[in-house]
Amino acid sequence: MERISWISDIIVVVSPENIETMKSIIEKYGHKRVMIVKGGITRHRSIFNGLKVFAENEFSNHLLQKPEVVIIHDAVRPFVEEDILSKVVMAAKEHGAAGAIRPLVSTVIASAADGCLDHSLERARYRASEMPQAFLFDTIYEAYQQCTDYDLDYGTECLHLALKYCNTNAKLVEGTADLWKVTYKRDLYAAESIIKDNLSQQVCVITNVKEAVAQVGFLLHESLKSQIKDKKYAIQETQQLVDMLEKSNIPLLYPVVLILVHLDISENISFSIGMEEITRIKKFAREVKKKNILVYGLLIQYKDHLLLQETVNSAAALIMALIKDRNPELTGQLLVA
Amino acid sequence: MERISWISDIIVVVSPENIETMKSIIEKYGHKRVMIVKGGITRHRSIFNGLKVFAENEFSNHLLQKPEVVIIHDAVRPFVEEDILSKVVMAAKEHGAAGAIRPLVSTVIASAADGCLDHSLERARYRASEMPQAFLFDTIYEAYQQCTDYDLDYGTECLHLALKYCNTNAKLVEGTADLWKVTYKRDLYAAESIIKDNLSQQVCVITNVKEAVAQVGFLLHESLKSQIKDKKYAIQETQQLVDMLEKSNIPLLYPVVLILVHLDISENISFSIGMEEITRIKKFAREVKKKNILVYGLLIQYKDHLLLQETVNSAAALIMALIKDRNPELTGQLLVA
Repeated sequence: MERISWISDIIVVVSPENIETMKSIIEKYGHKRVMIVKGGITRHRSIFNGLKVFAENEFSNHLLQKPEVVIIHDAVRPFVEEDILSKVVMAAKEHGAAGAIRPLVSTVIASAADGCLDHSLERARYRASEMPQAFLFDTIYEAYQQCTDYDLDYGTECLHLALKYCNTNAKLVEGTADLWKVTYKRDLYAAESIIKDNLSQQVCVITNVKEAVAQVGFLLHESLKSQIKDKKYAIQETQQLVDMLEKSNIPLLYPVVLILVHLDISENISFSIGMEEITRIKKFAREVKKKNILVYGLLIQYKDHLLLQETVNSAAALIMALIKDRNPELTGQLLVA
Repeated sequence: MERISWISDIIVVVSPENIETMKSIIEKYGHKRVMIVKGGITRHRSIFNGLKVFAENEFSNHLLQKPEVVIIHDAVRPFVEEDILSKVVMAAKEHGAAGAIRPLVSTVIASAADGCLDHSLERARYRASEMPQAFLFDTIYEAYQQCTDYDLDYGTECLHLALKYCNTNAKLVEGTADLWKVTYKRDLYAAESIIKDNLSQQVCVITNVKEAVAQVGFLLHESLKSQIKDKKYAIQETQQLVDMLEKSNIPLLYPVVLILVHLDISENISFSIGMEEITRIKKFAREVKKKNILVYGLLIQYKDHLLLQETVNSAAALIMALIKDRNPELTGQLLVA
C-alpha cells in the first residue's frame, strides 16, 4: 500500500506466532506507516482487533488518528490496484460501506440434510463477495461493537455486519479478475506466473564490450524492444552494478536478473571456452545469488555477418526466457546464442 | 477418458468452427471411442445435442448403444480423475443424478436493483456445483426433452433440470480441488504448472559414457532418487533414442525432455569446449524440437574426487530444473554442473 500516498496508516493483523516474522519482513523491506496488531481466533475477531487501534487507547501505545474511512483487505489477494481501492473508498463515503464483487464462476447450490440437491441458485442474480471493502469507520466499528459472539465466531462477511447492525446497504463495486483469493496450491502457481510476467516488463542488459561492436548492441536492443515495454541499455562492468545495488541499500523484493553478455569477435573458427572462465562465472553467480541477484552468462558469436540477425534473435529469445523464468538453478551458466 | 476402460463411448460436443481442429487433434493423438457432435448456441443446447446421439437416428450415422448412465463433463476441467467419475456414476445409478461439488471460496451475495447489497448467503450452507455430473440416461434425456426454450437458452445447471422435470434430487459428491474451472489467464498458468509438476515425476537420463564412470552414474541416480518418484537410468546414444521414439509412432502429447550428459574425465585443468561441439548440439536440438523433443546438454566435471558429490548434486539440480521448466528456448544449450 505504500505506493498509495492517500493511505495514512496500515494495520497488519497477524496471528501471534507470526508476529516476529512479520516484524522482520517490515524491517527488511523498509515498509513505512505499518503497525502490527495481534490477531484473534477468527476472521471477525482479527478485524475487530485491527479497528480497535484507532479507537481504544489500551490497544496501542500511540493512538492513531481515527480515519473517516477504513479499508479492509485480505493478504491472500495480493494484486489489489489503486483503482479499486479508490472506488470502494469513494463509494463508502457516500453509502457508508462498499465492497468489491466478481461474477460467480460456478453455479451455487444448496444441499439438503441427506447430502442431496435442495435447490440451485440462478447464477446471474448472485455475485462473489471479494476484497477490498471500505467503510465509514464509525459504521463498521459500531457494527463490530454491537455484534454477537456468534457473529464473531462464525461469520465471515463484513458487509453483512454493516447491514445487520447499522442498516447500511453496501455499494457493490465490480472488481478485476486479479482480486481472486489465493487459496490452493494452483493459486500460488498462478500468482507466481503473474508476478514473473509483470517483472519481465523491465530489463537491463549488461555487456563487457566496447565501441566496435555497437551494431550487435543496437540489433539486440531493437530485437528486445518489440517484446519489452520499458528497458535501459547500459554498458558497464557487472561487478560495479552489483556493488551499486548493494551500496544503494535498495531492498530487493524480487530477484534481480543480470545477464553478462560476452561477444566472441575472434576470427578463429575453433574458438573455445575455458573451464576456468566458466568456473569463475559460476562462483560469482553463487555469491551474488545470496543477495537475491541472479546472474547468467550469454555468449554471442559475432563472426558471420550474414547470420548476425539470426544470432541476435536467438540471443533476445534466450534473454527473454531467462528473465521470464528467473530460475535460480541456472545461475552462473553460460548460454550460447 | 481413454485411460478409463469402463467408459464405452465419448461424445465431444464442439462449436461448428472448431470441428476440423478437433478432428485433427483426435487423429494426431490417436484417440479412440470418440465421436464429434456439433454444439448449439448455449450450454444446454450443446449437451442436448450430445445426448441425442444415443437416442435419435437422424443425429448419427451409426446409432450408439443407449447407455444406462451418462457422464457430463466440461473440457475446462482437465484434471478429472477416475475416482470422482466412478463416484458420480455409482451415485447416479442409485439416485438418478449426481454431481461433484466444492466448498465456496468466497461468500455469495445477492445484489439489489440499485447495485447495493441485498443480503449475503451463509457460506456453510451452500456449495459450488462443479463437474463431472452423472445421470441415468433416461432421466436426463427426459429432462432435456421436457424443458422450455427459456431453460435451454438461459439455464446452466443440469442438476436443476433433473430436479425440475424428473423430480430427481441429485446426490452431491465432494470433489477434489483440481476440478476447478479453467476460466482466466491465471488458470492457464496454474494448469500449465500442474501438468509440468506431474510430468516431472518421470525422468530418463542419457549419458554417452562407458564403464569407468559408473560411480557418477550411481551418485546421480541416488541424488535424483530423493526427488523423483519413478525413473529409469539408461546408457545409450541419444540419436538412437530419438529414432526409437520416432519409429514407435507414439504420439508425443507433451514435450519429452532429453538431457545429454557429457562427462569430462580429462586430467587437463584447462579443459575447454569447442564451438563446433556446441554448434552441433544446438543444430541437433533444433531438429528434434520439431518432433516435440527437447534436448539439453549437461557437462559433469569428473576431476576432483573430493568435490564429486557436490558436482553431482549440482547436476541433479540442473536436471530437475530442466525437466520442471521444459523451456523450449534453452534447448541445445550445454550447461555445466
